[in-house]
Amino acid sequence: MSEAIKTDVLIIGAGPCGLFAVFELGLLDMKVHLVDILDKIGGQCAELYPEKPIYDIPGIPFVTGQGLTEQLLEQIKPFGATFHLNEMVESIEKIGDPLFRVKTDAGKEFEAKVVVISAGGGSFQPKRPPVPGIEAYEGTSVFYAVRKMEQFRDKNILIVGGGDSALDWTLNLHPIAKRITLLHRRDDFRAAPHSVEQMRSLVADGKMDLKIGQVTGLEGANGQLSGAALKGNDNAMSMIACDTMLPFFGLTMKLGPVANWGVALENNLVPVDTAAFETNVSGIFAIGDINTYPGKLKLILSGFHEGALMAQKAHRYVYPDKRLVFQYTTSSSSLQKKLGVN
Amino acid sequence: MSEAIKTDVLIIGAGPCGLFAVFELGLLDMKVHLVDILDKIGGQCAELYPEKPIYDIPGIPFVTGQGLTEQLLEQIKPFGATFHLNEMVESIEKIGDPLFRVKTDAGKEFEAKVVVISAGGGSFQPKRPPVPGIEAYEGTSVFYAVRKMEQFRDKNILIVGGGDSALDWTLNLHPIAKRITLLHRRDDFRAAPHSVEQMRSLVADGKMDLKIGQVTGLEGANGQLSGAALKGNDNAMSMIACDTMLPFFGLTMKLGPVANWGVALENNLVPVDTAAFETNVSGIFAIGDINTYPGKLKLILSGFHEGALMAQKAHRYVYPDKRLVFQYTTSSSSLQKKLGVN
Repeated sequence: MSEAIKTDVLIIGAGPCGLFAVFELGLLDMKVHLVDILDKIGGQCAELYPEKPIYDIPGIPFVTGQGLTEQLLEQIKPFGATFHLNEMVESIEKIGDPLFRVKTDAGKEFEAKVVVISAGGGSFQPKRPPVPGIEAYEGTSVFYAVRKMEQFRDKNILIVGGGDSALDWTLNLHPIAKRITLLHRRDDFRAAPHSVEQMRSLVADGKMDLKIGQVTGLEGANGQLSGAALKGNDNAMSMIACDTMLPFFGLTMKLGPVANWGVALENNLVPVDTAAFETNVSGIFAIGDINTYPGKLKLILSGFHEGALMAQKAHRYVYPDKRLVFQYTTSSSSLQKKLGVN
Repeated sequence: MSEAIKTDVLIIGAGPCGLFAVFELGLLDMKVHLVDILDKIGGQCAELYPEKPIYDIPGIPFVTGQGLTEQLLEQIKPFGATFHLNEMVESIEKIGDPLFRVKTDAGKEFEAKVVVISAGGGSFQPKRPPVPGIEAYEGTSVFYAVRKMEQFRDKNILIVGGGDSALDWTLNLHPIAKRITLLHRRDDFRAAPHSVEQMRSLVADGKMDLKIGQVTGLEGANGQLSGAALKGNDNAMSMIACDTMLPFFGLTMKLGPVANWGVALENNLVPVDTAAFETNVSGIFAIGDINTYPGKLKLILSGFHEGALMAQKAHRYVYPDKRLVFQYTTSSSSLQKKLGVN
C-alpha cells in the first residue's frame, strides 16, 4: 500500500455527470481525482453507446456518446483532474468531519474531504460465462480483468472471447505468458482488424494457439485450474491445458460495492436531498443515474444540474472559512482566468 | 379581440430555458406557444450578451448567447412551436382544472392547459428617459414600443435614441408618418450601418429631420403632446413640434406583470417545488432564473433540468388519461420519429 492520495474531492465514476462535476468544482477551486471501473473515460456513454446519437443534451441537437465525452473532457481541461481507470472503489471510511478514506481494488488509497458518487447504474461488471463450477476458480485462476500484467507472467493462459478485450489481452500478455490459447465460438472477430491480423500472424508462426468452440467445463482442484473442456463447433470434445483463464464476455451493470459504502439505499438507488444532492452521510454526495429524489429523471442533463448544486455545498466542506460568492463565467474575469480564457 | 388561441402549453419567455422546455414538452407530444416581450428569440442571451461567450453549458466548452439560441432553435425545430414576440402577458386567469386564459398587451388571448413562466429576471422594460413630467404623456403621446404601426399614421413623430430600435422605427414609420424627427445626443449611431445610411439619405432629401441634442421638457395638455424642448450640444434651446414621441433608451429588467398573475412570490421570485417546478397554482410552472427553491442557482443548465421535470407533470394535465412511459432519445424509435431522425 503506497501513501494515501490527498484530494479535495474524489468522484467515483467518470461518466458525463462526473466529468461535468469536475468543471463546477474546478470553478470553485476544488481539486478532483476520479476513479472508474472501466478502462476508459465516459461511463455508459463510452461503454454502451459510443457511436449512438444522443439528441437531448440541451443546446446540442446531435452528439454521440463518444463525442459528448470528448467535449466534456475539452471543457474540464483547465482543471487538471486526475483519472484512475480500471479501478473499483471497494470501501469508504469516514475518518474526519468530513474526511474520508477511500480504497480501491487496485490497492490505492485516497483521503478526500468530499466524496461524490457518480456511478450511473452502478458498476460495469464482467459477464460470467455459462461454465458450470466457474465460481470456484474466480480470483485464483479465473480473472475477468487484468489489473496487473505481472501476475500473468509464465502462465499458461486460456483467453476466451472475440472482441477487443480478448484480442488486446492476447497481444499484450503474449510476450510474458508461457503460452496463450485464444478461444472463440467462431473464426470471426469483432475487434480492431489490426489486432486480429497480429494475432493470426502469431498463430501462423506457432507462437500461440487459436481454437474455435466453447468451454463446457473446468478441471482443477482447490481453485487451481489445470484444464478446460472444449466443445468444437463439430461437437467434438477436447481438453485445453491451462492454469489461468481470462473470459471476456462483455460487461453488465450491477449495483456493485455501492451497497458497502455506508450510504443509505432505496431500491438500489441513493436517496439525496434536492438542494445539494447530498446523501444521508454529510460530505458524501450522489449525482446522476445512481441517485433518487421526488421527480427524478435519469437524464444526463439532470446530472449536470445536480453536479452544479453539489459543488456549492462541497465548497463549504473543502473551504469551511471561505465565503462563496456566486459568479458567472460570462461576466467574471476571475472565473475566466481559471478557464484560461482571460 | 380575435378568437382565443388554444394550446396545450403556453410558455412565457423565449429564453434558453423556455426554448429547451419546448423540446421536453415536444417529446411528450405537447404543443407549445411562446410569448416574449422582446422582439427576438433568446431572452437575456440574445438581449444582454449575444456576442459574449458562455463557458458553462455542459458539453459546450464555448458558445455565444446568440449561438446557444440558434442551437436550441435547431434542436426544437421538429416540434413547430409558435412564437409571439414583442408581446407582454398581462393577465392569467384560471378557468378550468387546469385551464388558463392568458391575455397579452397586444390583445391576443390564449387558452392553455398548462402555463410555464420562464421569464428570467422578469420583463425587459424600456428605460424611461430623464424628462420631467414624461409620465403624463405615456400611453397617449409617448410610447416605448411600437405594437401596431397603424397607430402612428399621419403623426408628427419625434424619435429619440441612436441605436437599432431608434433607426429601425425611423425607417419603418417614415412612409406612414406625417413627419419624422430623429433626435440623438450626438451625430454618431450605434446601429446597423445600412440603416444609418438610409436615414442620412432621407435627411439629405429633406424627407425627415435629424437633430442633435437632448429633450429637456415636454409641452402639451391632457396627455396630448404638442412639442418637446430641445437643448443642443451648444446649450442653445429650441422647440420641436410633435404630437408623438418614441424614446428608445434601451431596456431594463423589471419583475413586471408576473406580480399580477396570481402566483405566490418571495423576494420577487416564484417559489416552486423541486419535483416538477410547479408554483402554488396547479398547472402553472416556473423554470429558470425566475423561480426559487432551496439550493437554487441561476444557471441556464439548471433551467434545462427544471424544464425536463416540469414536462413530466405537465403531461398529466394535458393527457390526464395517458400513462407516461419514460424513454430515451438514444434508444426509443418513437422519440426518434418525433425528432425526425428515424
